[in-house]
This record gives sequence, C-alpha cells and structure tokens, in this order.
Amino acid sequence: MTQQTSAPEPARPLIGRDTRLCMSLSARPGNFGTRFHNRLYALTGLDYVYKAFSTRDLEGAVRGIRALDIRGCAISMPFKEAVIALLDGLAPSAAAIDSVNTIVNDDGVLTGHNTDYAAVAALIVDIDPATRFVLRGSGGMAKAVAAALRDTGFRNGVIVARNEPAGRALADLYGFAWAADLHTEEQADLLINVTPMGMTGTDADALAFPPAMITTSAIAFDVVQYPPETPFLRAAAAAGKRCITGTEVAILQALEQFVLYTGVRPSDAQVADAAAFARAHG
Amino acid sequence: MTQQTSAPEPARPLIGRDTRLCMSLSARPGNFGTRFHNRLYALTGLDYVYKAFSTRDLEGAVRGIRALDIRGCAISMPFKEAVIALLDGLAPSAAAIDSVNTIVNDDGVLTGHNTDYAAVAALIVDIDPATRFVLRGSGGMAKAVAAALRDTGFRNGVIVARNEPAGRALADLYGFAWAADLHTEEQADLLINVTPMGMTGTDADALAFPPAMITTSAIAFDVVQYPPETPFLRAAAAAGKRCITGTEVAILQALEQFVLYTGVRPSDAQVADAAAFARAHG
Repeated sequence: MTQQTSAPEPARPLIGRDTRLCMSLSARPGNFGTRFHNRLYALTGLDYVYKAFSTRDLEGAVRGIRALDIRGCAISMPFKEAVIALLDGLAPSAAAIDSVNTIVNDDGVLTGHNTDYAAVAALIVDIDPATRFVLRGSGGMAKAVAAALRDTGFRNGVIVARNEPAGRALADLYGFAWAADLHTEEQADLLINVTPMGMTGTDADALAFPPAMITTSAIAFDVVQYPPETPFLRAAAAAGKRCITGTEVAILQALEQFVLYTGVRPSDAQVADAAAFARAHG
Repeated sequence: MTQQTSAPEPARPLIGRDTRLCMSLSARPGNFGTRFHNRLYALTGLDYVYKAFSTRDLEGAVRGIRALDIRGCAISMPFKEAVIALLDGLAPSAAAIDSVNTIVNDDGVLTGHNTDYAAVAALIVDIDPATRFVLRGSGGMAKAVAAALRDTGFRNGVIVARNEPAGRALADLYGFAWAADLHTEEQADLLINVTPMGMTGTDADALAFPPAMITTSAIAFDVVQYPPETPFLRAAAAAGKRCITGTEVAILQALEQFVLYTGVRPSDAQVADAAAFARAHG
C-alpha cells in the first residue's frame, strides 16, 4: 500500500480557533497515532488536529483535557488503569476489562472506552469459537485479548504466563486454564502472542511459539506492532498459516478512536491510505 | 504585503511526538495568533504547532500546561491578572504592570511575561518623551501603554477615562493626570486610543478623538486591532499624521512571544509574510 503515500498531498485546513484537538498520553509516545489521525483528518476534510503527549502528572493532564475541551485522548501504558478514577464513566468496551485506552470528552463528561478490546474482537469474529487457543501474556493487552476471546464465545484455551498471580488471575477471570510454560506438544489451532517477544529491541529475535506448534496450528496472531513482521509471524506466514498482525490491531483500534472522536467513519480507501502513511512516516 | 501570501506554501513538518505545542487562552479566541505563529513555524522550519483555546477553568488549564509540557501560552482577556497566582514567577515586563499576556514554560517552571508592554515600548521608543500625550482608556491594555510611556520617559500626559476609580488609579500609579472627559481645546501631540471606540461592532463608527484634536496633533496611536484602520486612524492619516496601529502592536507582541517560546528571531521578511498571512486568513 506504500505507493498510495505518493498521491497528491490532501489539503490540510489551517488550524484555527474552531479546530478541535485530539491527543494521546503515554510514557513513551510513538508517532503512529499522530500520523494516522492527522492524515485521516486531511483526507476527510475534518477540522481537527492530533498531537501525542507524555506526562508525569496524569491527574493534571486529565484536568487539562477538561479545561481545554480536548475532544479525545488515547491512553497508553502505564495509564490505562490509573486513569479510570479520573473519568466520569466507562463504556462497555472499557468496563469489560477495567482498562481504558481512549477518553471521549462530551462537553466535559469524560467516558473511557477500550478500542483495543473492540479491535481484537472484530479481528477474531470470523474464527470458529470452538477453536482451541494458546495465549501468551498476562498484561493489560492480554486482558483485552482474553476478554475479546471470551466474549466472542471462545471457551477452550490456555493462558501461558510465567507470572503466576497475574496469569492465574487473568485465566480465572475469563474461565480459561493457566500454565506457567508452553506445553510444546500441545495442539492448538490459534496461537496468540501478547508478550514483547519479537518486538524491536532486546527481544527482536525471540520466537513467541516454537516451530512445531506453528506447524500444527492454523492461525497466528501477534499483537506486537513494531516490527510489523515478527519472527513468529514470519515463520507462520512461511508455513502458510493465516496471520493476524499487530498492525491490524493498531489500525483498527485507531480507526475506532477516530470514529468515536469525530462521528465520521472514513472509507476503506481512506483508512488504507492513512495506515500506509502512518507506517511510512512512523 | 498581501501578495506575499501567494508565495509557494512553505513545507510544514509533520506533527509528531517531538512537536512542541504553544497555545492561547482567552474567553473569545481569535485566529490572528494561530495563523501568525503556525506560519512562522513553517517559514522557519521549527517543529512547533499553535492552537487557540477557550476555557472556563483557568486553574485547570494552567495545570494542563504543566502536565502536558506545553511550551508557551498567550493569555488574553479576562485572564491576564487572575493567572498570576498560578505561575512561578514574573518577568520584568509583567511585573511592571501586574498583568500577564504570555506564559513561558521552562521544564515546569512557569514565568509570566507581558509582550504588549514590550511591543508598545518598542513602538514609542523613537518619540521624544517630552511630547504631551492624551491616552483614552483605563483597562489592562491601557495600563500596559501607560507603563510603557512612563518607562520610556514620558512625564507630561493625561489619562482620560470615564471610570473615575480606574482612571485615577492608573494615572496615580504612573504619575500622570486624570480627566473624566476629553478637553477638546487641549493641545497634545500624541493621541492614544485604548478604548473599544472604532472597533468592529457597535463602536465601529465612533471617533476616539475629535477632528480638532487630530488636526493639531502629530502622532495618532490606536491599539484597536480590528478593523486595521479605525475612524480615528483614517482621519489622522488623511490629515497627514504619523499613525501607529493596533496591527503593529499585535504583530510585535506576537513576534516577541515567538522569540520567547522558540529562542529564534525570524527575519523581517518572515515576520512580514506571517503578518500578511495572519491578516489574510484572520
């Protein structure tokens, strides 16, 4: 899709007094959301602007969102749980997992949403829920994935997490089994990585699932966003498996944020353009 | 200067995680500052973005400036005095008049400045301070002008303001005379309007000084920004008087804000381009 970014630059409306600001809060902001949203604003002609922020004062930042009437705010690590106490309410997507990745500000009433949950649910909705899965991870995103699995009808799976309290709690919460380590002889059709394994940095070479498990699986799902293709997904693609990528999650959750903030659902072509643009300028 | 806005659009860097936000706070935001600053960022290639905000919670807004590490904030009516208690200190320009129109945020330390005062002082610096003046007005901007007059060496003048407590207080503060009404037989070489007379709206046709006073004066100074040419300035220009305009004040004070925020002083040509652009897209 990269060639689409060489299309003529869409006209960007000048920022003015009526331009609405949307933003993100995280310990270490990336550029994906900023590029994606600003590109979509330009493509759809909406008078919005998007900017990523970091903060050491979450309460002050949320107070600023109210005082400056900032329309929406993406919430990333490590604020997804702590922010809940500062909001006026939770949408079902956030209440389902007690985790907020999106604030929508309606004239000073702040509602927490979780578009990660919604995005994962949308990406697995066409998979037979009788499919047996193995999910690696026990953090906030693992919770979003486990909740989406449960709410989509999956009943037959195991949460693999070395952190026993977190892993057991997550498994118990959604009625799944827990294991400290992968049982590599185990047969599962859906393999899901929600750990940093394969992520750019120290874990870049780590393979989230062993080749034998990949070979006998049917679907590989990796939530890692950078790099777009992890060793796990590369091995799965080479073996002809269906792959669901972290990029798909990132795009879909950002798209749902865009719709929540603006009330406008862009066309598939606009979303593809914005996604290619965000990846090209990440 | 308007034809300069037809020059090729300067490249705007994409907004990203390192882009710094500057902003304004006022009850009724205009577009001049937003256009001026964003245009100058583009012309100088600085990775900044500027956005005007309104608020009903000044304290929350300033807390947001700290929490989000917003680099600078212009302060307009009605917040210029109230904001002082929320800052960490005042620069001499703001301390001189106990009024802040600019916040500079240095890693969480908020300092109040007053670039209106600085701009007026710069615009009158070449006038002989022995010149007798009449200043109409007693509000916050009148205070900035009166202080600039006093600090530039002017001693011989009268503050004309129907509001007696405000007018007397202002006159006493800077050692000038006070009068409730214009003494139209009075001779003054420098006439200064710091009231809404001539401003777009209900006072649009009001002439701040009578023709006889304009005829016998030498310099007409009107701080009204919209329209760029008030009835007072039009009459003065027709009579061949030197004119100092509200637009000059607006440009100069915004330029000083730009320098405070970025540490970069743009060229005269860049300032002229940004000013023409801001007026054309106001």
